[in-house]
Amino acid sequence: MPINAQILDNPKSDRVRRIADLARAKGRERSGRFLIEGPQAVREAVTWRPDVVQDLYVEVSQALEHPRIISSTLQTIVDTSQDATIYVHQCTGDVIRHISKDAQGILAVGNARAMHADSEDLELSAKPQIAAFWQVRDPGNAGTVIRAADAAGCDAVVLVDDCVDPLNPKVIRSTVGSLFHIPVLRMGTEAFFNWAKDHNMDVWAADVYGTEQRKPESLPQVLANHALVAESKAVLFGNEARGLEREILEQCDRIVSIPLYGKAESLNLGTSAAVMLMSLAMSGHIETM
Amino acid sequence: MPINAQILDNPKSDRVRRIADLARAKGRERSGRFLIEGPQAVREAVTWRPDVVQDLYVEVSQALEHPRIISSTLQTIVDTSQDATIYVHQCTGDVIRHISKDAQGILAVGNARAMHADSEDLELSAKPQIAAFWQVRDPGNAGTVIRAADAAGCDAVVLVDDCVDPLNPKVIRSTVGSLFHIPVLRMGTEAFFNWAKDHNMDVWAADVYGTEQRKPESLPQVLANHALVAESKAVLFGNEARGLEREILEQCDRIVSIPLYGKAESLNLGTSAAVMLMSLAMSGHIETM
Repeated sequence: MPINAQILDNPKSDRVRRIADLARAKGRERSGRFLIEGPQAVREAVTWRPDVVQDLYVEVSQALEHPRIISSTLQTIVDTSQDATIYVHQCTGDVIRHISKDAQGILAVGNARAMHADSEDLELSAKPQIAAFWQVRDPGNAGTVIRAADAAGCDAVVLVDDCVDPLNPKVIRSTVGSLFHIPVLRMGTEAFFNWAKDHNMDVWAADVYGTEQRKPESLPQVLANHALVAESKAVLFGNEARGLEREILEQCDRIVSIPLYGKAESLNLGTSAAVMLMSLAMSGHIETM
Repeated sequence: MPINAQILDNPKSDRVRRIADLARAKGRERSGRFLIEGPQAVREAVTWRPDVVQDLYVEVSQALEHPRIISSTLQTIVDTSQDATIYVHQCTGDVIRHISKDAQGILAVGNARAMHADSEDLELSAKPQIAAFWQVRDPGNAGTVIRAADAAGCDAVVLVDDCVDPLNPKVIRSTVGSLFHIPVLRMGTEAFFNWAKDHNMDVWAADVYGTEQRKPESLPQVLANHALVAESKAVLFGNEARGLEREILEQCDRIVSIPLYGKAESLNLGTSAAVMLMSLAMSGHIETM
């Protein structure tokens, strides 16, 4: 698709205002669109999910006679977008910076409905590995855990109950593109347990304390059992401050804790998720090596 | 030691100005002191390294006839400090907030020289496990990796070559107290390799690419070899943006990379350090279970 010849140069235009408004939840709800900021996230979006990207906005320099995209990195992204027939708009630096301080010369508008992953349509592997997060509230944490689940080769991420909106720009930035690599579903707590059961997945709680009736198993013990590690499962992590409620722990098939060997009292949610998901993935791969 | 009866109430006094100045590298250099902010870091400092803490500053409320420390959490820290004969100063909320926005009612001043860990005096275990970081520049990253090394039960952290000052308040906050749990040494690159050799430690580079001559070994392969994992070693991580230079990789005994199973292109330094150090620690403990 050709680049629009007209250069957007008015930071106060209605179009620019509407795009900037996508940084807020209300703006996204109203329009059904969301914002993708910066070369890394935009590149991953147009590469892996071009079906989601509606419009691309790229900074051009007008110093020369003809407008020029400001860097070869951005030019490469524009080329990929054109191959995918995404509409490309040239903008002044003022316009780009007015929309987002984190754009670094490029941003895209995506279709929220196309991004929406449906549990019915999801294609799972033979032994699915799911990373699930209950009431994760901080955008940076949500991004970090989605990136960890991607690195660990999980089939999908499930955001359970009342979590931060994965289309919040801060979440997207923190995933460093992983939001476009792995399906991210949203479910209520009951729906999540039903869905896991329907797909013959055990639910493992990642939790330090366990319940009065049930102490957690230590992760290294679990890792040593390669057959167990290879089973279908969803690993469920709790809220960053409060962990998992007792009612939820009681519904889980296993409770697994990460041991701490020094004097540190805890690991944060992002680190816990990375350590548990990556060590399960590595242990699963040792068996097949 | 008794609490100083006088309440510090002048945010513009010389004393308050000098303490606030410890947030900056110049202030720390000039005075040989450093700042510890907030209940968590102060509690860990007075619990594990009371020898380092010179003065404690705590917020009191003057609403009643007698000044009262504003919460039971802070009172507990003050009690611990008094047992350790640390000098306690009562301050108005204004004074505390003037010194630091991150104090949450309590802060301490430490002696930088007492905090300085010397490689000569360091007591290492029979098979020492060291976490080393070359040119880590971001305070948040440095804090996160020190916390990960603590959680993994490492003997010490070594900051190699030109790293961020571990007594930078942002580093201390990000360690969530771990700075007071584990010795943190600083060495030049050559001194680090000599020190490792003197202590019969192999140096393992954590690196994705390796050199032209030497491809990295994959972490799960290494983890499967429990005898190898148990050996004395220092794991060396590179700069957050540039990794490790070829000259450094060539001096390392092994190069080990964390596999990525999904479409994510990388993990950040903090996550990489946590995954590698924790999975080595867990693998080391499987053998002895």
